[in-house]
Amino acid sequence: MKTKIKIGYVGVGRRGLHILENCFIKMNDVEITVICENVDKRIEMARKVFAENQRPMPKFTKCYDDILTDPEIDAVVIMTGWDSRPKMAKAAMLAGKYTAIEVGCAETLDECFELISVYEQTGTPLMMLENCCYGRREMLALNLVKQGLLGELVHCTGAYSHYLNSVELFAEMLSEKEKAEGVTHYRLRHYIEKNRENYPTHELGPICKVLGINRGNRIIKLSSFASKAVGIKSFAEEKFGKDSEYAKIDYKQGDIINTIMTCDGGETISITLDTTVPRAYYSRNFSVRGTKGMMSEERLAVFLEGMEEPVRDNEEEMYEKYDHPLHAEYEKVGARGGHGGMDWLVCRAFVEAVKNGTNTPIDAYDTVTWLAVGALSEQSIKSGGMPVDFPDFTNGKWQNREPAVRGKYCLDEICVDEKVRIVNEG
Amino acid sequence: MKTKIKIGYVGVGRRGLHILENCFIKMNDVEITVICENVDKRIEMARKVFAENQRPMPKFTKCYDDILTDPEIDAVVIMTGWDSRPKMAKAAMLAGKYTAIEVGCAETLDECFELISVYEQTGTPLMMLENCCYGRREMLALNLVKQGLLGELVHCTGAYSHYLNSVELFAEMLSEKEKAEGVTHYRLRHYIEKNRENYPTHELGPICKVLGINRGNRIIKLSSFASKAVGIKSFAEEKFGKDSEYAKIDYKQGDIINTIMTCDGGETISITLDTTVPRAYYSRNFSVRGTKGMMSEERLAVFLEGMEEPVRDNEEEMYEKYDHPLHAEYEKVGARGGHGGMDWLVCRAFVEAVKNGTNTPIDAYDTVTWLAVGALSEQSIKSGGMPVDFPDFTNGKWQNREPAVRGKYCLDEICVDEKVRIVNEG
Repeated sequence: MKTKIKIGYVGVGRRGLHILENCFIKMNDVEITVICENVDKRIEMARKVFAENQRPMPKFTKCYDDILTDPEIDAVVIMTGWDSRPKMAKAAMLAGKYTAIEVGCAETLDECFELISVYEQTGTPLMMLENCCYGRREMLALNLVKQGLLGELVHCTGAYSHYLNSVELFAEMLSEKEKAEGVTHYRLRHYIEKNRENYPTHELGPICKVLGINRGNRIIKLSSFASKAVGIKSFAEEKFGKDSEYAKIDYKQGDIINTIMTCDGGETISITLDTTVPRAYYSRNFSVRGTKGMMSEERLAVFLEGMEEPVRDNEEEMYEKYDHPLHAEYEKVGARGGHGGMDWLVCRAFVEAVKNGTNTPIDAYDTVTWLAVGALSEQSIKSGGMPVDFPDFTNGKWQNREPAVRGKYCLDEICVDEKVRIVNEG
Repeated sequence: MKTKIKIGYVGVGRRGLHILENCFIKMNDVEITVICENVDKRIEMARKVFAENQRPMPKFTKCYDDILTDPEIDAVVIMTGWDSRPKMAKAAMLAGKYTAIEVGCAETLDECFELISVYEQTGTPLMMLENCCYGRREMLALNLVKQGLLGELVHCTGAYSHYLNSVELFAEMLSEKEKAEGVTHYRLRHYIEKNRENYPTHELGPICKVLGINRGNRIIKLSSFASKAVGIKSFAEEKFGKDSEYAKIDYKQGDIINTIMTCDGGETISITLDTTVPRAYYSRNFSVRGTKGMMSEERLAVFLEGMEEPVRDNEEEMYEKYDHPLHAEYEKVGARGGHGGMDWLVCRAFVEAVKNGTNTPIDAYDTVTWLAVGALSEQSIKSGGMPVDFPDFTNGKWQNREPAVRGKYCLDEICVDEKVRIVNEG
C-alpha cells in the first residue's frame, strides 16, 4: 500500500478546478504533480489555488504525453469536456495509470467497446467519478436495499432535471469574472447536433448499484423517446432576440427525453433528461420500489412495511436510523468538498483504490454501461422508439461478478465490520 | 332545454352507490326512475339511500332492458364492473339515451371501435365520467395552459399510484359491514390474466384535455413496459400464508407499468400504473411542462416565467390567482359529493348536457381514446416494448374539431364570459 500517490490532472475548466480546489488539493496523501491544460487563464486560476492552499506547485503542460510518460505518476484524472475523455482514458490505461473520468455520456457505442477492450487488455482500473453514487440519499437507498428492507425490487426512477438554459449552454451569459477565468462551453454543440439522453449517469449510476447491474443483473433493453425541441429556441428568442444567431439555430435535442430500461431480473428503470424547459426546482427524481417499501426523492419519503400511509418528508428521521455507515461517520465531521460531500467521497474512493492497488468501486464495466446510454438512446429515438438491445460489456461475466473492491467505499455491498474513518483520511 | 331529467342507473356496488348517494340523488333536477342491479343486498342499500334522502323510490330491476325500453328515461348511467360496460353502453346509445360510463379501460381495441361505430351511427352522446378532469389541480393546469402561461407544451406526466393490495383486490379483506352491503370484487381477475396499463384514464384524461387531443392534436404512438410481477404474490404470502390460494396464483400483471405516448404535435406523455407494491402516499403524479413554466403535483408546485427557483408548495397561492372559474365559484360554496368535489362536477357536466341537449364535454372520441390505452399497452408489452400505432378514432376529424360543448363545463377551452353558477344547480 502506498501512503502517498501522485496524480496527473487533465483539465482545470469550471468543473475540473472545482474538484481540484475542493477535493484533491485538500488531501494530504495526494500530490498533483502535473496539470495538463490548454487555456492560459485557467492555468493562472489553478496556480492561484495551489498557492492559496500552500501545496507544492505542479508542473503545467499543454501536452498530455507529459503525464502519460511520467513514471512517477500513479493516476490520471480527466476533467475535460465530454468528447475528449474516451481517447484520453484509453491512453491513460495503456500507460498503466489508474484512470478517472468525469461524468458524461458516450458519443458512440464503439467508444464504450474500445474502453473495455483496453481495460481488458491492460487490467488498468477505470473509474467514472460519478459523485451521485456517494450522495447521502443514494447511499441510504443502497443501505436499505442491501439490508432487504425494501424487499424484492421492481422499479427505479431517476432524472437529470436541471434547467440549463443559462450559463451552462450560452457563453454570452457568463459573468465577466467567469470569462476572465477562462470558462468556456461545449455542451451547446451537443444540443444542436444530437437528440438523446445526454447526461444519464447521475441517476443511472446509483440505480445500477442498487439493482446489482453487472453483478448478478444486467440491463437487457432500452427504449428512448424525445419530446419536441422548442425550449432552447424559445429561450434564445426571448433572451437574445428573434434575429440572434442562437434563435436561428435548429436544435435537435428534444426538451424531455424519457428512457425505459428492462433488466435481466425483471426490474424496470425509468430515467428522464430534463434540461431545457423551465423548472421549479432541481431534482434527480430518485426512487426505488420494492415489495416491502419505497423511497422517493420527490416527497423526501421513505416508506417501510408497517408504517402508516401517507408518509412524506421523513427522510431526516430515516437518516438517523438507516444512514449508510460511510455517511453516518462523514456527517459527524461535516461534509466536505461540495455537492453535500459526495464529490469528496467519490474522489476519496478513487484515491483509496490507487493507494491500495485494488480495483475501483465504480469499475470499467460500470463506467461504460452508464456511458453507453447516450448512444443507445439516440439509436432508439432515431428509430421511433424501437427497443434496442443493451450490450453486455462483461461478455457473460455479470452473472457471477464479485464486488470490484470491498470495504467502506464499496457500492455493491454494505461494509459494516470495518470501522469507517473518513475524517482523517487524506 | 329540459328542467328535469330522468336517469336509469345501472349498478349500485361500492362506486355506484357512492356516486348515487353523494351526487345524483342530491340533484333536484335529476330523477332516478329505474335502478338495475342483480345483488339483493345492494338493492337494499340503495333503497335506504333513497329513503334517507326523501327522494321518490325508483323501480328496481334485474333486467337492463327495462331501462332501455322505458321511453321516459333520458339517460343511462353505467356503474358496473369494467367488463360489462362497453356492451351496455352500446345498447344504451342504440336506445337513443345519453350514456355515461364509469372510468376503466377497454378489454380490446374492437370494443373501442364498436363504441365509436355505434356513436357515429346513432349520434347519441357517450361520456366517461372521468372525475379527475374536474379535479381542482387538473383544472388549474387547464386554466394556465389555455391562458398560455406555460408556453408551448412539451411533456406531461401522470400516474395511478394507489396501493390496492387490500380490499380492492382481496374479498377476504372486506369488513363484515362491507360484505353485508354486498361489496364484491372483480379487479383481481384482471391482475391474474393480464399485463397492461389497466387504469389509465384518471391521469390521461386531464392530460389529453391539456394537450388538445382529438381537437387539433392526437396521440400517434404508444410504448409500454412492465416490471416483473411480484407484489401481489408477496403480499398474499404474508397476509394469507404461503399455502393460501392467493399465494399460489401466477399473477401476470407487472407491478409497475410505464407507458410513453407521442403526440402529433411533438409532445410526449408518460403515465405509470403503480398499484401492487407498497407506497408512501397516493399520487397521480400530474405534471405539465412547457417553454414558459411547469406544474408538478409531487411538489405541489406551479412555476411561471419570472419566478425565482426553487418553488415548492405554492399551489394554494396559485389557486388564489389562477383557479379555474368553475372551481373558483365552487370553492365559495364548499366542494360537494366526494373526492374533493370532482365527482359532483363530472356528474353535473353530464346532467347539464342531457338537460341542454348538447354533446358532452368528455365525448365519445375522448372516451374511447382513453379507454384504448389498456389494450394498446398490453399489445406493446407482449411484443417487448415495440411502439404500437395509436388508432385515430376520429378518422381525421381531430384536425379541426371544435369543443364538443361550450360553456362552464367545457374542458377544451376556458369559459370566462358566462357567469359560473355551480351552487344553485340541481
